[in-house]
Amino acid sequence: MFSGGKDSSLVAILLEPFFDVELITCSFSVLPVGEVAKRAAEELGFAHRVLKLDRIILENALKIIANDGYPKNAINYIHKNAVERLASDMGVKIIADGIRRDDRVPVLTDSQVRSIEDRFGIKYICPLKGYGRAAVNMLVQQHLVIEEGQSDNMIKGDYETELREIIRQRFGNEKISELFPTHIQSRIVKRVI
Amino acid sequence: MFSGGKDSSLVAILLEPFFDVELITCSFSVLPVGEVAKRAAEELGFAHRVLKLDRIILENALKIIANDGYPKNAINYIHKNAVERLASDMGVKIIADGIRRDDRVPVLTDSQVRSIEDRFGIKYICPLKGYGRAAVNMLVQQHLVIEEGQSDNMIKGDYETELREIIRQRFGNEKISELFPTHIQSRIVKRVI
Repeated sequence: MFSGGKDSSLVAILLEPFFDVELITCSFSVLPVGEVAKRAAEELGFAHRVLKLDRIILENALKIIANDGYPKNAINYIHKNAVERLASDMGVKIIADGIRRDDRVPVLTDSQVRSIEDRFGIKYICPLKGYGRAAVNMLVQQHLVIEEGQSDNMIKGDYETELREIIRQRFGNEKISELFPTHIQSRIVKRVI
Repeated sequence: MFSGGKDSSLVAILLEPFFDVELITCSFSVLPVGEVAKRAAEELGFAHRVLKLDRIILENALKIIANDGYPKNAINYIHKNAVERLASDMGVKIIADGIRRDDRVPVLTDSQVRSIEDRFGIKYICPLKGYGRAAVNMLVQQHLVIEEGQSDNMIKGDYETELREIIRQRFGNEKISELFPTHIQSRIVKRVI
């Protein structure tokens, strides 16, 4: 599951010696997030493809965030649907996710993970789940050059980018800052080793 | 943290391309667990050393298990002390632990991990924390030949082996089977790749 950010890029690098890695970016085709992620994947030197997700998932996520007033459940809803969609693809045996020890979103619960593994016969792994922020940053520094910026002016291959855009289209910019806390996003620029 | 079992062996292999790995086996010198683990480490092709732990830790663990009637808290107590002892060693920057997604023992709590990282200025990582049993078994099969057996007739470089022995010495064999559920242990025999 590849957003073009530092965590999912690092996962690809850590798995490279052991697996045949293909980077997958999910998109609702609201913004060219697939193309942005594809350029990052080329820079890293991995195969890449865009997985188109059904717009209804984004519409449902929009209802969830409008109802909640914060993005957590909406993002988790998209993530669960994205993992299930990918898990149903022929040829997919293992799905790797970039979640870190301290991440709270997007995250699947233990029972969601077990259910997905059982229903689809795949393995779901989170190679950074046992790494804290400092350990991730150290490895990122060794292997990647990254660019960091505010989440509101960075197109990334994550769910938030397109969810924000659809909110902007429907309700305007002020609704975005009402629903999303600004936070620092990363985008990889270059692979060092 | 290396016991000579499949999980800690796999951790070493997964980290090898990215870190300068040294395998550490903790021992109270009750049984030759350090020597057993050293042979496994040689088979894997990694540097290895034995970290002697203070007997008072084992005595305290004995009190805990005698009081509880089950091993979980005693094993976790030894583990926390072992990690702290290793973290205080000059030159140790990162400690890697073989715990898997489904493991419940030995495990540090989130706040114990954060406290150890802050107090000792080290990073504590669990590379298999985001891997389930099936994913671990798949990787083990690709990289290792292992031997499995009942926990009661296998000397391993884990805390349980010496805790069982001291209980045997003080209270006899029947007390061991009263306190410890038997479970399958693994020991690595050979590295394949």
